[in-house]
Amino acid sequence: MTQVLIIYASDYGNTEKMARAAAEGAGSIDTVSAVIKTADEVDADDMTASQGVLIGSPVHMGTIDWRVKKFIDTVCSGLWIRDRMIGRVGGVFTTGGGFGGAGGGAEIAMLSLLTTLAELGMLIVPLPKNTPGYTDGGLQWGPYGRSADADMENVGVSDAALDVARRHGANVARAAVVSGNADFFAP
Amino acid sequence: MTQVLIIYASDYGNTEKMARAAAEGAGSIDTVSAVIKTADEVDADDMTASQGVLIGSPVHMGTIDWRVKKFIDTVCSGLWIRDRMIGRVGGVFTTGGGFGGAGGGAEIAMLSLLTTLAELGMLIVPLPKNTPGYTDGGLQWGPYGRSADADMENVGVSDAALDVARRHGANVARAAVVSGNADFFAP
Amino acid sequence: MTQVLIIYASDYGNTEKMARAAAEGAGSIDTVSAVIKTADEVDADDMTASQGVLIGSPVHMGTIDWRVKKFIDTVCSGLWIRDRMIGRVGGVFTTGGGFGGAGGGAEIAMLSLLTTLAELGMLIVPLPKNTPGYTDGGLQWGPYGRSADADMENVGVSDAALDVARRHGANVARAAVVSGNADFFAP
Amino acid sequence: MTQVLIIYASDYGNTEKMARAAAEGAGSIDTVSAVIKTADEVDADDMTASQGVLIGSPVHMGTIDWRVKKFIDTVCSGLWIRDRMIGRVGGVFTTGGGFGGAGGGAEIAMLSLLTTLAELGMLIVPLPKNTPGYTDGGLQWGPYGRSADADMENVGVSDAALDVARRHGANVARAAVVSGNADFFAP
Repeated sequence: MTQVLIIYASDYGNTEKMARAAAEGAGSIDTVSAVIKTADEVDADDMTASQGVLIGSPVHMGTIDWRVKKFIDTVCSGLWIRDRMIGRVGGVFTTGGGFGGAGGGAEIAMLSLLTTLAELGMLIVPLPKNTPGYTDGGLQWGPYGRSADADMENVGVSDAALDVARRHGANVARAAVVSGNADFFAP
Repeated sequence: MTQVLIIYASDYGNTEKMARAAAEGAGSIDTVSAVIKTADEVDADDMTASQGVLIGSPVHMGTIDWRVKKFIDTVCSGLWIRDRMIGRVGGVFTTGGGFGGAGGGAEIAMLSLLTTLAELGMLIVPLPKNTPGYTDGGLQWGPYGRSADADMENVGVSDAALDVARRHGANVARAAVVSGNADFFAP
Repeated sequence: MTQVLIIYASDYGNTEKMARAAAEGAGSIDTVSAVIKTADEVDADDMTASQGVLIGSPVHMGTIDWRVKKFIDTVCSGLWIRDRMIGRVGGVFTTGGGFGGAGGGAEIAMLSLLTTLAELGMLIVPLPKNTPGYTDGGLQWGPYGRSADADMENVGVSDAALDVARRHGANVARAAVVSGNADFFAP
Repeated sequence: MTQVLIIYASDYGNTEKMARAAAEGAGSIDTVSAVIKTADEVDADDMTASQGVLIGSPVHMGTIDWRVKKFIDTVCSGLWIRDRMIGRVGGVFTTGGGFGGAGGGAEIAMLSLLTTLAELGMLIVPLPKNTPGYTDGGLQWGPYGRSADADMENVGVSDAALDVARRHGANVARAAVVSGNADFFAP
């Protein structure tokens, strides 16, 4: 079995919904088991047991949630030092009110997660434009679920955004299965 | 008089409309004259004659138009070498189809313009959240005019986005007037 | 008096040294008082009492320290909602081992701080290339103090980098004095 | 045979050297042929004939060379519209004077190339920290060859940086071989 780990933090349940959809998508791939953990509970062993990792975060002030950052600083730093995740596969997703027509800073938030994957030496799976639902819940870096309306009322992520998350989870899982049997990075 | 220069490239006229709105806003401030040029025609003298500069670009593949980049590489690089723009004031704006609910890469495009202003040592004017029209045409880094619908049909930037551009131009002009009489950067 | 607030987190004392240098520079400007606080202790009242703000962070995995992010999420978010910091002045700085010849991800870390300033509607002060010490401790977005050598041994930030931080603090303070008497952003 | 395409622009020959090293690395992998083209001469057929693509650029004003951007706007945009590159494999590299101890803006330049790969739906190969030469010529996003000293004199990229480029080319080629036989992105 290939394990895919989905890590997230959530304030109002929207990022949790996206995480569950991504896990559902990953788990739908043959020979893949999906494990889902919050940023508070995930540890280094969860990471090293996984061939694929998806990290999701609400967007706060144009970057990621501090609980996700705490996980990165305290768990991922040590894995980086010891070169433990090189050659595995990763993807990211975010949610947010999207205040402002251009997404409310989702892009730097996604790049803050992607820099972690890159530092760890992991292959990065982006979100192809032909993914069904992309116009509603997509950005080139990964799924983005809008959770609030123009008045900043929490209205919840759309079914289309959840579907994008599901497909992204499946994409990462497919790549993780292959990367488990290949050595992309040679000495 | 304080001169504010607005530089842009445009494919279908949308960025040009945003540029004209920004110029209108800048020119509405007492003692400010606004000059508008395309990226193809602006030169180093236009830059050094200006206390404030706004640069606008369509978003192409998640970054700025190559004609704007050519202006940056061929005109701005020399000004950077000779420390000619330090202490002046700048702002940015973009337009784009916004394919994907999160803005289609507008943020890296804006940062590609902002890095130019920062390299030149210019004060950066962001877009405050309380700007009228922000929910339609704003991002924290500056105005963003959506020019296409979900099917990528060019529908033109909204009046709200143009109004945001107008107000952003006025904000940059106000800061340029003050920075012309102050020395923020001392040796 | 114009108050300039310096906020930081520190692991081994390097970012603290940079913060103290920035505070020294800010406090050297006439009519400016500098206040220095850790990310753990600063509150909303500290922010609203300040016309200028400098935020500094170690670089961890290519972005900012989680304690700085916690401050942003818990203190700055509320100020953003209520439009409390619009028109004030800000700057950023970082420290890091800089593993890898290109700075080890300092740029996304700085942008993670700058997006906070931009969201708050604050004028951004970059670091001019002609700042003495720039070649040792500068990036266009602000001072960057290298704290470790190629073997990741902590060797401490250089005097040149501390000098850059001092001058950056003074630059932000000068701009803060002016912005306290001007209204860049009009309704 | 799996084709890996290396695309670059060069001012003083440094990026060309890095491109040739990357091509040498890619071509060293069994069943891979490496093709190298300048940004001016590459066309859509070159792209669609390639399972792996490396794009390299000098850093100018904190982002990529305008000739590389012209290639992206004029060649890649059409491929994006028609979903022609989805599931292939990409990597990036840059060169630059690195004025300022933190790399002179190499990171946004690399992200400007990476956003193109992500928009095209291509798997992204980062640069693992354990790559020999990383401390001299590496960043998490890819190889970075410093071409100038602190006085901005062109001294040429180091052998270590060229070695990093060679290994990065080989890494991308290995991933391209696998991705040619796998379907990561399903409908």
